[in-house]
Amino acid sequence: MRPLIADIRSTPLLWLLVFVPVVLAAEHMGAGSPTTRFLLSVLAIVPLAALLSRATESVAVKTGDAVGGLLNATLGNLTELVIALAALGAGQYMLVKASIAGAIVTNALFVPGMSFLLGGLRHHVQEFNRSTARIQAALLFLATIALLVPSVVHKVDAVPTTGASTFTSDLSLGLSCLLIVTYALGMLFTLRTHREFFGSAAHHGEDETPWPVTLAATMLVVVTVVVALVSEVFVASVQEAADSLGLTPAFVGFIVVALVGGAAEMASAFSGARKDRLDLSVGIALGAAAQIALFVAPVLVLLSYAIGPTPMDLSFWPGAVVMMMVAVLTISQVASSGKSAWFVGVLVLMVYLVFAMTLYLLPPMGTAAMP
Amino acid sequence: MRPLIADIRSTPLLWLLVFVPVVLAAEHMGAGSPTTRFLLSVLAIVPLAALLSRATESVAVKTGDAVGGLLNATLGNLTELVIALAALGAGQYMLVKASIAGAIVTNALFVPGMSFLLGGLRHHVQEFNRSTARIQAALLFLATIALLVPSVVHKVDAVPTTGASTFTSDLSLGLSCLLIVTYALGMLFTLRTHREFFGSAAHHGEDETPWPVTLAATMLVVVTVVVALVSEVFVASVQEAADSLGLTPAFVGFIVVALVGGAAEMASAFSGARKDRLDLSVGIALGAAAQIALFVAPVLVLLSYAIGPTPMDLSFWPGAVVMMMVAVLTISQVASSGKSAWFVGVLVLMVYLVFAMTLYLLPPMGTAAMP
Amino acid sequence: MRPLIADIRSTPLLWLLVFVPVVLAAEHMGAGSPTTRFLLSVLAIVPLAALLSRATESVAVKTGDAVGGLLNATLGNLTELVIALAALGAGQYMLVKASIAGAIVTNALFVPGMSFLLGGLRHHVQEFNRSTARIQAALLFLATIALLVPSVVHKVDAVPTTGASTFTSDLSLGLSCLLIVTYALGMLFTLRTHREFFGSAAHHGEDETPWPVTLAATMLVVVTVVVALVSEVFVASVQEAADSLGLTPAFVGFIVVALVGGAAEMASAFSGARKDRLDLSVGIALGAAAQIALFVAPVLVLLSYAIGPTPMDLSFWPGAVVMMMVAVLTISQVASSGKSAWFVGVLVLMVYLVFAMTLYLLPPMGTAAMP
Repeated sequence: MRPLIADIRSTPLLWLLVFVPVVLAAEHMGAGSPTTRFLLSVLAIVPLAALLSRATESVAVKTGDAVGGLLNATLGNLTELVIALAALGAGQYMLVKASIAGAIVTNALFVPGMSFLLGGLRHHVQEFNRSTARIQAALLFLATIALLVPSVVHKVDAVPTTGASTFTSDLSLGLSCLLIVTYALGMLFTLRTHREFFGSAAHHGEDETPWPVTLAATMLVVVTVVVALVSEVFVASVQEAADSLGLTPAFVGFIVVALVGGAAEMASAFSGARKDRLDLSVGIALGAAAQIALFVAPVLVLLSYAIGPTPMDLSFWPGAVVMMMVAVLTISQVASSGKSAWFVGVLVLMVYLVFAMTLYLLPPMGTAAMP
Repeated sequence: MRPLIADIRSTPLLWLLVFVPVVLAAEHMGAGSPTTRFLLSVLAIVPLAALLSRATESVAVKTGDAVGGLLNATLGNLTELVIALAALGAGQYMLVKASIAGAIVTNALFVPGMSFLLGGLRHHVQEFNRSTARIQAALLFLATIALLVPSVVHKVDAVPTTGASTFTSDLSLGLSCLLIVTYALGMLFTLRTHREFFGSAAHHGEDETPWPVTLAATMLVVVTVVVALVSEVFVASVQEAADSLGLTPAFVGFIVVALVGGAAEMASAFSGARKDRLDLSVGIALGAAAQIALFVAPVLVLLSYAIGPTPMDLSFWPGAVVMMMVAVLTISQVASSGKSAWFVGVLVLMVYLVFAMTLYLLPPMGTAAMP
Repeated sequence: MRPLIADIRSTPLLWLLVFVPVVLAAEHMGAGSPTTRFLLSVLAIVPLAALLSRATESVAVKTGDAVGGLLNATLGNLTELVIALAALGAGQYMLVKASIAGAIVTNALFVPGMSFLLGGLRHHVQEFNRSTARIQAALLFLATIALLVPSVVHKVDAVPTTGASTFTSDLSLGLSCLLIVTYALGMLFTLRTHREFFGSAAHHGEDETPWPVTLAATMLVVVTVVVALVSEVFVASVQEAADSLGLTPAFVGFIVVALVGGAAEMASAFSGARKDRLDLSVGIALGAAAQIALFVAPVLVLLSYAIGPTPMDLSFWPGAVVMMMVAVLTISQVASSGKSAWFVGVLVLMVYLVFAMTLYLLPPMGTAAMP
């Protein structure tokens, strides 16, 4: 336990762990308004996500390159997955879809944008490995395309109402299998046959000494359970909290869940950018976004057959489709130049801000039309 | 005739020629179900397409570079053109449009994707000439944009019903002229003023000894006539066959016609990829796709005024528009990196599979709404 | 005054200044049909735009690099701004939006396309600085995305009618502030922190001897006032003239206003291309397009609160959205290759021609549906 306590002492972010017992107690006693419980759960998830990411990396370091990379890649978005599972169990499919879309957009715009800005404020011009970034952007681009096909075809074609529901759910099921197969082949590619191209991004916690493996493995299990418990509070309170804070559910799912769930990776990406290691930042961001599209989203579809009230499909509401497409096109465009300066960050962040502003202003009734 | 017989002996693909008399006899005697005749016609077209491609190349080699290149470029998609003409004469505009869209998507995704995969399984990383590929991808991108404008503007703008039909057909007519002029200028560019950039792709049959010119010219005429006859069987049986096989007409036009009509070019592209000559594969694929958009599609519009029951316009159904746009954007993105490995092929093929799955699952009534 | 008279003598374009008194007199006396006055105002604006551009550059040269660059950048699209202001005051929001969209499309397609063609007819292959062009294309891409978000979200989402109008105008207002802040930061970037990347484009009038500063400053004020007067005639007559010439208002705003307002910049861009200085041409075109999106459009929204009958929002009609997106994607694609030949120009111009043809053929009633 000593390394854990040392970590907590030296990392102010982890002091937020104090909110974990608070939120669980509040939920148990029914104390506080839903808004309070919502805010507490947000504050509690951030340090848990950081611990989870630390534990995953420590286990990964100990198990050798191939298995470690696999663990890192599969558990990298564990927090998002656990939150989404809680929402899935509660049948809140709109929240699940908004958080999938939001995680892709956040990782494709906010994380690189902020990295370019923070890095650019310290360094005049930053270069990053253009060809690696391009391969990663291409993966993300193709993954996003595949994810969006059902939404687009469903929307634009005059599918008659009788056959429509089976069509969309059949397509989503088939597509999820295809995406997971692709993800598995992608693992083979990045961790085995062509790992030399993806080397640097795999070790993004290299500055920290890893935890002993038993501590790491225990923490992995324990923290996942705690995240699950806190996520239940989060999901149970989000609707009422959003109403009372004047936020639309789309805004909460898209912006808040994505920022909260990805806090730990963001910290790594930003610190990489400030150290002029933009390869690392871009790798983390694009990798996380691709993983959401290729792995988290299809797994949620498949699990919805087991734990959801009805099967969930992959049709997103049109605004989310546009935002995902634009985000992915934007980062492909930017990544293909291989260079960055502070203003590139400003521009990418501006696109993100425009999306956030749109979702914030969108009348709440409008989002009721989401499938 | 000897070179022809030698070719047939050494090329198992050409043994399928046995189905040519079978399908024509079956049609003449009214034997077999429409489904049988449909399958026989598919099997018969594949070797005919290969012969046509062989004959075109042999004539091209003999007539010198400029005329040869022109012949190669103009007759390269002769099979697709003849099939489409048969469908045009029968007034099956939906099938014509689906086969145009499918030929673009197949050449932009399936052919390069399979080439990257087959090449990547033999070679660790393959490089191809980035700047040539980029010029070709840009040509294809712009050609596709031009082709899609009527569909998009027609769909999105609130065109009143009274003026709409004239608007779309006027626009399609004007656009077809513009596309053909552009195609002619493109010939001038690739074959005359800047031919050094496009050199390698022009001689993709260089491993085979060309046929004598009289044989080649005769075959060109004879095989075209036979393809036309078989295409009539194909078009006459496709509707009933699709029904009984549970395929939508969109699937047949988009996937089956495109794969059947392009079989010969695919064989060249794949063999190029395995020999680590990706330039060749990418050149064949992008060239064929651009030719469909710039030449075959507008020629069909113009010919519809002569041989169709009513003029055909260039408005595609929305799903096809999205698929063409995505296909072209995908290949532009991938081609701009100039590098490939097996997983790039997997990803590109995945996008193609997603489209195929979508069209396969699309309820048949949905496609009845196609214009 | 002598340098002015010398300029007028040596520049045939400026002889068109003779139409300035003619059109003002015609308007004053109510002489001529609206169509005549419309055509006269078009002929009068072209040389005025050239004078305005000359005056701005002369002032800019005298005030040193930073202020000069700022002036050049801010006043570069002064003609378009003045015309749009006249339309704004008259409440012709459709014309304002069409001219914004048209200016972006013209600068992103027509100007580079014609530059590539004119340059390519003299030089076999032209190279331009790929990384500068890519940064500029990325700026334009992101600016356009931001500009288009309200239109897209507004269109695709099922925004209920009650909240819709406030939503769109709130979003447009917030977005306009965001765009102007971004523009200001962009000035800081291009003129101060990273000016070495944008150097060449700033001095595009370097062949001409600048006017004395008092003449230049006086001309700046005087010509702006005259442009404003002529613009009023233009705006007052455009509707009736378009009707009697059989042009749609969309065509006039999109094509005519953009070509007229940008005549001076186009002359510089084309002459640069012929001198094999494509960096200059691409820089002028992409810079002007980005400026319209980041500065002119939001300023018009903000000013509409002061001088328009009702606030103007940023929702464009769907066809314009598609054309802007396609234009920006096309030029990004082309600019990323860093090379050009005459046929690239043909292709880019073809896309522009397709748009022009579409707008020309669009039934006039269709455009009445524009918001």
